[in-house]
Amino acid sequence: MRAEIVAVGTELLLGQIANTNARWMSESLAAIGVDVLHHQVVGDNLERIVDAMRLASTRADVVVVTGGLGPTQDDITRDAVGALLGVPMTRHPELEEMLRDKFRSFGRSEMPESNLRQADVPESARYIPPKRGTAPGLVAELPAGARIYAVPGVPEEMVEMMEGTILTELASAAGGVVRSRVLRCAGIGESALAERVDDLFSGSTNPTIAFLASSGEVKVRITAKAPTTKEADELIEPVAEEVRRRLGDEVFTSEDESLEQTVVRLLAASGTTLACAESITGGGVGARITGVPGASEVFVASAVVYTEGAKEGVLGVSPRTLEGPGPVSEECAREMAAGARRVFGSDLGLSLTGAAGPDSHGGAAPGTIWVALEGTDVAHARGFYVPGERDRVRRWAEQAALDLLRRHLEGRPLPASDRLI
Amino acid sequence: MRAEIVAVGTELLLGQIANTNARWMSESLAAIGVDVLHHQVVGDNLERIVDAMRLASTRADVVVVTGGLGPTQDDITRDAVGALLGVPMTRHPELEEMLRDKFRSFGRSEMPESNLRQADVPESARYIPPKRGTAPGLVAELPAGARIYAVPGVPEEMVEMMEGTILTELASAAGGVVRSRVLRCAGIGESALAERVDDLFSGSTNPTIAFLASSGEVKVRITAKAPTTKEADELIEPVAEEVRRRLGDEVFTSEDESLEQTVVRLLAASGTTLACAESITGGGVGARITGVPGASEVFVASAVVYTEGAKEGVLGVSPRTLEGPGPVSEECAREMAAGARRVFGSDLGLSLTGAAGPDSHGGAAPGTIWVALEGTDVAHARGFYVPGERDRVRRWAEQAALDLLRRHLEGRPLPASDRLI
Repeated sequence: MRAEIVAVGTELLLGQIANTNARWMSESLAAIGVDVLHHQVVGDNLERIVDAMRLASTRADVVVVTGGLGPTQDDITRDAVGALLGVPMTRHPELEEMLRDKFRSFGRSEMPESNLRQADVPESARYIPPKRGTAPGLVAELPAGARIYAVPGVPEEMVEMMEGTILTELASAAGGVVRSRVLRCAGIGESALAERVDDLFSGSTNPTIAFLASSGEVKVRITAKAPTTKEADELIEPVAEEVRRRLGDEVFTSEDESLEQTVVRLLAASGTTLACAESITGGGVGARITGVPGASEVFVASAVVYTEGAKEGVLGVSPRTLEGPGPVSEECAREMAAGARRVFGSDLGLSLTGAAGPDSHGGAAPGTIWVALEGTDVAHARGFYVPGERDRVRRWAEQAALDLLRRHLEGRPLPASDRLI
Repeated sequence: MRAEIVAVGTELLLGQIANTNARWMSESLAAIGVDVLHHQVVGDNLERIVDAMRLASTRADVVVVTGGLGPTQDDITRDAVGALLGVPMTRHPELEEMLRDKFRSFGRSEMPESNLRQADVPESARYIPPKRGTAPGLVAELPAGARIYAVPGVPEEMVEMMEGTILTELASAAGGVVRSRVLRCAGIGESALAERVDDLFSGSTNPTIAFLASSGEVKVRITAKAPTTKEADELIEPVAEEVRRRLGDEVFTSEDESLEQTVVRLLAASGTTLACAESITGGGVGARITGVPGASEVFVASAVVYTEGAKEGVLGVSPRTLEGPGPVSEECAREMAAGARRVFGSDLGLSLTGAAGPDSHGGAAPGTIWVALEGTDVAHARGFYVPGERDRVRRWAEQAALDLLRRHLEGRPLPASDRLI
């Protein structure tokens, strides 16, 4: 079964909001085995809405339209469905009654007459009664065979009708599911990942593999279709296992959790406490770790030591290091990690220092990063270079520090320094 | 001039990500007076990408395609542009050289041969050289008159080419300009803002006003169209002045800078240094401040004191406070701010403590926040309550602390505590 999503609303075309409805609807449709092959977005214009629905109905079995069912003059999806069907509108007395009841229950005195447009349904269409809002959804069958659903654009009202009516109707018709498994990797590029595993999928359409790169990590998604969840999982399992084996130490999770969630989980599982010493990232690593509920069990503190005085005064970095190799150096990173561990009394100390740019810092070129980890059974530093803008350099520094910690906690080999420029 | 956006990527149709590129591109195109009438989304399928571009080119003057320019097998937008034009691909030696250079500068030894596909450009098309990433953009003129731009799907790379090339080319072609002035406000809701200024715009289509609320702040955008920049600015200026007058202390910038940029600018202008003491935010305030280039002139350090032991040991919060009012209290916030100032020797100390949720913390309900500011001429604490999830509570805490600092540096009245539940 093929579906298409048509979102109606000029605010989407002006970029005032993102089309998050389409994301949610696509994810929900995929989960019951319905293929979404296109999204369209059109403004509040009758002709363009009709054209979009007509195009969608020629290439999809199910068209789900969202938006344009409200009470105001620019809400014209109802009329567009009527125009596409070529039928007049019928006012439903029971919907009129519902609208008046809802208005009374909202504590408002008088309902604008224009709201009654929401009681209009194209002849030959049926409607989905609204629970939360006031706009009924619409269901229409086109002569050529496609079915059109129209739901409100307000996200909660859209979700209510998708979950209450549409997904149920489609799931029973579609028979089949799509399942995905996501592996996430840090410290390796998309193309290098792809080279290691692409042959597993060449010519295969079930399961398929997709790569999605963003700021210092790559998601590898393996997707399979089958009549049942169990069969889909059985298609995925051996392939995911082989992908994981080939990617080895690079994979930090196969549960689609974030790198900081992985780290907090590993710290908690081993009863290990952590303190950080951050310079280049200004507190970003602590912020990410403490964004995970339950972080307070494992995270003690972070010393954000941006100046040389703070590095020396709070963490005890030696003046000799600051004057010699400087604040962006292996020595400084190691002393910061050791200092954080000592000052805060944690099991592990994790440090980051570097030059985020745009200017050099402490004699180091922008993009130079040092991270270090110190504990009873580990003392490791890694230097590397990341080209790009300040935000990118800082993000990569965070990823490298968190991933160094993750590899240590999993007992994997720790990465060596790259050649620094 | 009419434009259409085509986003390419199966991950969009699976609902794995929202089409935030289309939102950003739409907003940017609207800002230079280009009407966006449709969005389309298609998966990584050659035929459907070609069909989508062809349809777009029949109803728009400019088609901007995003996604599918990467190095992997499923990146086929380049081929689709070639197929639409009906021309073969040409490998450009200077792009090949650029790819090899970038790979070397990333510190990687060997480039996968498949990456060289990114050096292919359809004959008769030109390309946009990438700064940040490795994928060149494409520019093609169709015989029927429409122009097609193709840019990467990675947001930063898309923005780079939109801002560096595409918006400039289109703005000069569009004739006439659209100018916007953005005021940003913290600590006040969208509807409360709108109530104060809506009458200025009733019935006016030039300039117009729009409100955009997100995590603890509201952007107020005033937009005017005119033949020249000067005339557009003359339309905006008196209205912006009046809006700013009515919104008063709530406006932190009329230069569309972030709250942390405002704060760093004000600290630098007054030669004031800052240290932070963060609990609930885990380092988020320091990370935001140090994200601003030049922050090292004004930002000394932050003590991220997540545990009670760290609050006492590093910042000297008294055991009496921790045992009595507890770690989420006015007393603790004040002692943390004073401690940060004393320990790091800064002019000002700024602190945040609270319960981010989902559980209560130190006897305080989730959503309870205290921020405090301490200096020679200021000692102020503010408590308030924010409902919602962990991320939202933490973000509001950051906004409140930064805005308290901003108001102090601007000599404005400091906000009182709300009634706490």
